[in-house]
Amino acid sequence: MPFTDQLRSETSALYTDLYQLTMLQAYWREGMDETAVFDLFVRRLTDRNYLLACGLEQALEYLEHLSFSDEALDYLDEQDQFDPSFLEWLSDFAFTGNVYAVPEGTPVFPDEPIVEVVAPIGEAQLAETFLLNQITFQTLAASKASRVVQAAHQGGTDRLVADFGMRRMHGTDAALKAARAFYIAGVDATSNVAAGKAYGLPITGTMAHSYIEAHDAEMDAFREFSDLYPETILLVDTYDTLDGVRKVIAMAEENGEDFRIRGIRLDSGNLAELAKQSRRLLDDAGLEDVMIFASSGLDEHKIARLLDQGAPIDGFGVGTKMGTSADQPALDSVYKLCGYAGQPRMKLSAQKSNLPGRKQIIRQYEDGTARRDVIVTEDENGHPGAPLLDRVMTDGERTEVGAARPLDAVREHAAARVSELPDRLHTLGHSEESYDVVLSDEMEARLNDTRADLHEAMREELS
Amino acid sequence: MPFTDQLRSETSALYTDLYQLTMLQAYWREGMDETAVFDLFVRRLTDRNYLLACGLEQALEYLEHLSFSDEALDYLDEQDQFDPSFLEWLSDFAFTGNVYAVPEGTPVFPDEPIVEVVAPIGEAQLAETFLLNQITFQTLAASKASRVVQAAHQGGTDRLVADFGMRRMHGTDAALKAARAFYIAGVDATSNVAAGKAYGLPITGTMAHSYIEAHDAEMDAFREFSDLYPETILLVDTYDTLDGVRKVIAMAEENGEDFRIRGIRLDSGNLAELAKQSRRLLDDAGLEDVMIFASSGLDEHKIARLLDQGAPIDGFGVGTKMGTSADQPALDSVYKLCGYAGQPRMKLSAQKSNLPGRKQIIRQYEDGTARRDVIVTEDENGHPGAPLLDRVMTDGERTEVGAARPLDAVREHAAARVSELPDRLHTLGHSEESYDVVLSDEMEARLNDTRADLHEAMREELS
Repeated sequence: MPFTDQLRSETSALYTDLYQLTMLQAYWREGMDETAVFDLFVRRLTDRNYLLACGLEQALEYLEHLSFSDEALDYLDEQDQFDPSFLEWLSDFAFTGNVYAVPEGTPVFPDEPIVEVVAPIGEAQLAETFLLNQITFQTLAASKASRVVQAAHQGGTDRLVADFGMRRMHGTDAALKAARAFYIAGVDATSNVAAGKAYGLPITGTMAHSYIEAHDAEMDAFREFSDLYPETILLVDTYDTLDGVRKVIAMAEENGEDFRIRGIRLDSGNLAELAKQSRRLLDDAGLEDVMIFASSGLDEHKIARLLDQGAPIDGFGVGTKMGTSADQPALDSVYKLCGYAGQPRMKLSAQKSNLPGRKQIIRQYEDGTARRDVIVTEDENGHPGAPLLDRVMTDGERTEVGAARPLDAVREHAAARVSELPDRLHTLGHSEESYDVVLSDEMEARLNDTRADLHEAMREELS
Repeated sequence: MPFTDQLRSETSALYTDLYQLTMLQAYWREGMDETAVFDLFVRRLTDRNYLLACGLEQALEYLEHLSFSDEALDYLDEQDQFDPSFLEWLSDFAFTGNVYAVPEGTPVFPDEPIVEVVAPIGEAQLAETFLLNQITFQTLAASKASRVVQAAHQGGTDRLVADFGMRRMHGTDAALKAARAFYIAGVDATSNVAAGKAYGLPITGTMAHSYIEAHDAEMDAFREFSDLYPETILLVDTYDTLDGVRKVIAMAEENGEDFRIRGIRLDSGNLAELAKQSRRLLDDAGLEDVMIFASSGLDEHKIARLLDQGAPIDGFGVGTKMGTSADQPALDSVYKLCGYAGQPRMKLSAQKSNLPGRKQIIRQYEDGTARRDVIVTEDENGHPGAPLLDRVMTDGERTEVGAARPLDAVREHAAARVSELPDRLHTLGHSEESYDVVLSDEMEARLNDTRADLHEAMREELS
């Protein structure tokens, strides 16, 4: 089984919550197989001015390959909750619906559907858990990385950002998918070799303290490593940072024209101060081309502070805080029934509502800047702007626009779309004035009508 | 490929940071293959009074099966950094070292090695990323869940706790491994069907709002679902919680002796108030046996508050906040070189130090309560108490004590060891008086000697 196919494994249909399967059986038994509309969206933003949609590719791969293996069916049979004829029906199960989605790398806002699934209700329901799992987490990762990249590019300089987060991320799937999401958001490379292979990402790395410590002297380690990797980045802070820098300078003097070390890495202490002192030592020795990389507990705020302090840092290795989106480790994402059998549906529970029916998002521009989004009903015309939802799957098959896209194209799309956002959304702080997402008159009317109908139905049921 | 074997896939050796591979080549080229000692430990605790060690089983599976497939070697070959004869050597690579570890489900504290790897330096180095990735995340998950279970069992009542977190956890591996870690920590069941299958965990679930909404009336949905699943738990808050409860009561009156509904679930609104009102309605109707389950943004603090308010809740569905360990989404875990070629090693960088050499942890008890841990050198005798580190692998093969253990045994071990901790560590708040972890005189002397030797060596190198 090829590596990237792991998630298409024989039991992928079991990557779901049990209740999706019990509800599926109930729908099957009740003969409820009319078309449902489900929206996947985020209810609110906390400490983010926008989200960067991500994870659609894995969602579509899943829907294309969703099936129940014999092994999965045997397991379900053991649960004593499923009828043999239902399990028989599951053995032929496939996703046959339509999917509408915002392209990966597009900024999105609360209430806007990132994915809209239109399918027989049981199929759409079953997919909820995996779709939420992948799109929530990947959108979270891309959104965090977009901020880190924003901070690192302060003043228009494209400083390098590398993902060093694998060791403290939540498992292997997180490490793979986040490395991909980070790249889409503008991160330049990852240390994660498996992610490099799976997605064709640039991989990068320097050296660890343990390598230095295993040698009798720091200088021996530097010489050996750069002999093997002449353009490497040397980690200089194992014992004393500036002593480490002086050793690099001594090597340059020894090696003359053969000296090709690309940079040094600082991983502890006062990074701003040490970067300045290191820069001075290197420059005084004529080593203006030797770059300074920094790592150690970095996030967008620390990077911004370092650059504000004038730290001459050329690249950042960012680990745990980006890798776990530490300040905001989950999004308030949901997957809500918006329609069934041609009728709009919604939930009335306080603060857990949704927009009924199918819809489209229109992004409206002024002078090249995105000014507001209008959520309209699916068949409305007359709203100027760019529609965001594409039809990416028809009857369970990908459409042309739903085909897998080269990652570099997604990355370019993300950079272009993020740059179109109003400047106030590019700040790391919370923008006082949030981006406007409004409902069209028709959508507003549908919302009110649906709510009124539901209240009426409740009254009838109770009377 | 069987499902639980996913991580033994042909490319598992690529689940690493690139620098582990470049360092491995450097060690190979330099002929450095003497034995290294690496400790995996957590440097400090934030908002936790103890950690529950978890993830060893996956770490050992990885070390047992670690190898480079042809596909992996081809990928490395494309990177233009690796010598063909090194890649040839990798094709026969296997982990041949010894491993010492604290059993899964054991409470641990800062500086205590959870795993100690003793192996040829390149082998031990390569394993760093995967071991940190799995043990950090799983220990994080078990530690968070231990607090949630503690809160739910307030007053000595074993209220149920179910993991509902898959949808917002960080990918599929996180959802699988955390469900296992939660079970070890005392969580009773998971909604994640794949985790149920992979690890034999009890799986559970109720119904979603969308199921109710897809029916014309809430009562129809209740009747259909309970006809199929007579002992189900009905979600009552889709439209109006107490109206929902009254419908359950009406069903009980309709069905008489055949009524077997196990409970109701509340998922929005003022849970304490709604639980009390629901309990009253149910009790007045003679339905004392119908349990009340609650979900919606729960964590240990919210559960404790609900119970403090006297909410008559019998079980909790806990999702995102436990699933992402939201208040603390990573541990400050590290994997540090402590010895090489028989010599103790350490890093001098400020605040990033480690204890040199091999070691043992002795847990000392008074009247059945754990009073303090002493970190001793590996060959010390004469410290009363229970040693925590077992030898789980010898020459790359599991020892008897390192064999996979039944999950229920691990869960029982965890419950017993957590209950032995001093009461002050069982509070959800930060215990003012932290648990004592001290160094033996011999360990203290080794630390001082190693530090002095390193300073001396630095002086010599610079002079």
